[in-house]
Amino acid sequence: MNAPPEFGARARERWQRAQDLIGQGEAAIDTPALVIDLDAMERNLARMADFCRAKGLRLRPHAKMHKSAELARLQMAHGAVGVCVQKTDEALALAHAGVSNIYISNEVVARPKLARLTRAVHTMATRFGIAVDSALGIVRLAEALQQAGVTSSEAIDVFVEINIGHGRCGVAPAQALALVQQVMAQPGLRFAGLQAYHGSAQHRRTVTERDTALAASEAAVRETLAILKTAGIAVPLVTGAGTGSFVREASSGLWGELQAGSYLFMDADYAANEADPGAPVFEHALFIKSQVMSASEVHAVCDAGHKSHAIDSGLPSVWLPSGLAYANGGDEHGVLSVVDSLGELPALGETVWLVPGHCDPTVNLHDFAIGLRGGLDTGQVERLIAIDARGALG
Amino acid sequence: MNAPPEFGARARERWQRAQDLIGQGEAAIDTPALVIDLDAMERNLARMADFCRAKGLRLRPHAKMHKSAELARLQMAHGAVGVCVQKTDEALALAHAGVSNIYISNEVVARPKLARLTRAVHTMATRFGIAVDSALGIVRLAEALQQAGVTSSEAIDVFVEINIGHGRCGVAPAQALALVQQVMAQPGLRFAGLQAYHGSAQHRRTVTERDTALAASEAAVRETLAILKTAGIAVPLVTGAGTGSFVREASSGLWGELQAGSYLFMDADYAANEADPGAPVFEHALFIKSQVMSASEVHAVCDAGHKSHAIDSGLPSVWLPSGLAYANGGDEHGVLSVVDSLGELPALGETVWLVPGHCDPTVNLHDFAIGLRGGLDTGQVERLIAIDARGALG
Repeated sequence: MNAPPEFGARARERWQRAQDLIGQGEAAIDTPALVIDLDAMERNLARMADFCRAKGLRLRPHAKMHKSAELARLQMAHGAVGVCVQKTDEALALAHAGVSNIYISNEVVARPKLARLTRAVHTMATRFGIAVDSALGIVRLAEALQQAGVTSSEAIDVFVEINIGHGRCGVAPAQALALVQQVMAQPGLRFAGLQAYHGSAQHRRTVTERDTALAASEAAVRETLAILKTAGIAVPLVTGAGTGSFVREASSGLWGELQAGSYLFMDADYAANEADPGAPVFEHALFIKSQVMSASEVHAVCDAGHKSHAIDSGLPSVWLPSGLAYANGGDEHGVLSVVDSLGELPALGETVWLVPGHCDPTVNLHDFAIGLRGGLDTGQVERLIAIDARGALG
Repeated sequence: MNAPPEFGARARERWQRAQDLIGQGEAAIDTPALVIDLDAMERNLARMADFCRAKGLRLRPHAKMHKSAELARLQMAHGAVGVCVQKTDEALALAHAGVSNIYISNEVVARPKLARLTRAVHTMATRFGIAVDSALGIVRLAEALQQAGVTSSEAIDVFVEINIGHGRCGVAPAQALALVQQVMAQPGLRFAGLQAYHGSAQHRRTVTERDTALAASEAAVRETLAILKTAGIAVPLVTGAGTGSFVREASSGLWGELQAGSYLFMDADYAANEADPGAPVFEHALFIKSQVMSASEVHAVCDAGHKSHAIDSGLPSVWLPSGLAYANGGDEHGVLSVVDSLGELPALGETVWLVPGHCDPTVNLHDFAIGLRGGLDTGQVERLIAIDARGALG
């Protein structure tokens, strides 16, 4: 029963079928489909590049969001120094597809994964980095490099992660010194700086709430830098920040590199934040195209449920037609109702454009995105964009 | 930039790599991974088959849950008459992989999808069925059959869906007659019965709450049958029910076919229900194998977040080690804490087995499952099971 020759054949068939859309109007796109408004995406791309250039900061967008080598290369062509990922197999998927600088901003302690990664360090031209927060992680990384036959004295960039308030991974400032010294003592590892990321602060809605959380984060970074300075250790870089908070980190004078990723697509959750003063304006560029497949007097049911879009950060909002609310209809359905006096229920077969609540896990549900040029309603399909690292969990 | 030869290459590579696991102990399985306890699954399979045989009812399990042709064939080998799916492309993926009887228990009004389906009706040996709840849907289905060159007078089984309380798709009992008559008047369509499914009732926790909801569902089915009988129309079959409620539908004397799917794997959500009297006991057979990749004094962080398992019906529960609770750590992390006096935090690298909150969208995140024989802790990998219809949204 194993190794069916058909493995992956249906996804390839859907990809091939979608090739026929290129040059056609949006009406030809079957539903549900992951659609990128390329014009809006490129405006977002330029705005973030401009912001980082003006601040003199490095941009290393998080590619766990789009999982696409093409979009990673596009970001790098616009000045990004490389990308972040969260997983070893994400890094390998993007490296195989030609991304030249990849940082795993997350801990890896499993030997099979470290073996895969260090083989790639040994054999590929890509520059890799990784985060650590344990002595065991550092020992195993160094062992794996040795087993892979890596002889370079500084083969991989290693960032020590500190917990700056998110309360997930990372060590307390007082524990960072020992890990940094351990990294510096290991051949093959280059101490590249500190990983300092506060994820949950970014989803607090008001500027004041985020400022309160990030003031504590800054204090933790300062404390760590002071401890390392006292020990005579220079920290090459502090890297972190995301789309919900990067303006604050950028103005702190502490972070040298920003990891924001969602700015490229902007999801409904980040859009619900009160904007930071001086923040670039990002537009929704990622949509689920859906259509009505059942209708009654009281509601219309569209063909996109939570197998089409992630709902961990809330349900999608209805972009078009206006005046509608989306309620959860399960794996494959959304239930639409009228919420303002100008709205009316769409008819059977009518198109409904949704903005996902959270772009990262939404993209991960799809094998490819359809790139539309010229607006949602009037645009033409320009190209398909493969989600190279979809399902790369290891 | 289009049609990269690499499309899907990484998933195939992961599948090939996993082949090496066959015959090895569970310790060799890298994380996070979708793992099936084959012994538990086979006991669930047998218990449901026995239940349906004893009741004299047809079983047509919902394959939207496992999306696997191998598991669909296994269910049919144990007496299931065929499977349900929710999507046209799910039906086509399973048909291509050799499943011979497939019912799309959902409405399809989009012409491209109906064209794909009716081409398959024309060219494949698989018997297909579909649900309808609109005049437009019936007209378009008949047109598509004609365009595909289908000449058989009863080429496809058509079920008219009635709303029995779920409040999503389906028409009111009083509206069903007109649709049934329309189906019967169309060449190529065979009126096969009524689709009567109440999804949300199945997640009500107590037997009393479910009984109240399903009493109203039964009344709606009876009312529809009475209207059709008065019009001289025999209803060949009422099909519906799911893992959370099938004992009730089975004893109603109304349903002739049960669509339960989750019984095969049992997720944490269904397991939280008070059991119906006389219900077979189903065991958890679907797990996420994870491991600790960061640890502090207060918690351990495992490498499975909501890109590894769906959280629409709640977070996963921790199966092993015991005494731990799982808190949401985002896309790629779970935060484990001790919740009883016997529990202790697992160490870095230690295995953690999770039971997903909802099996259907969890399976859809993975390209294949790893089948383990002989128990989670002591088992050996027997085979890989491809998720043939993963990502088949259309």
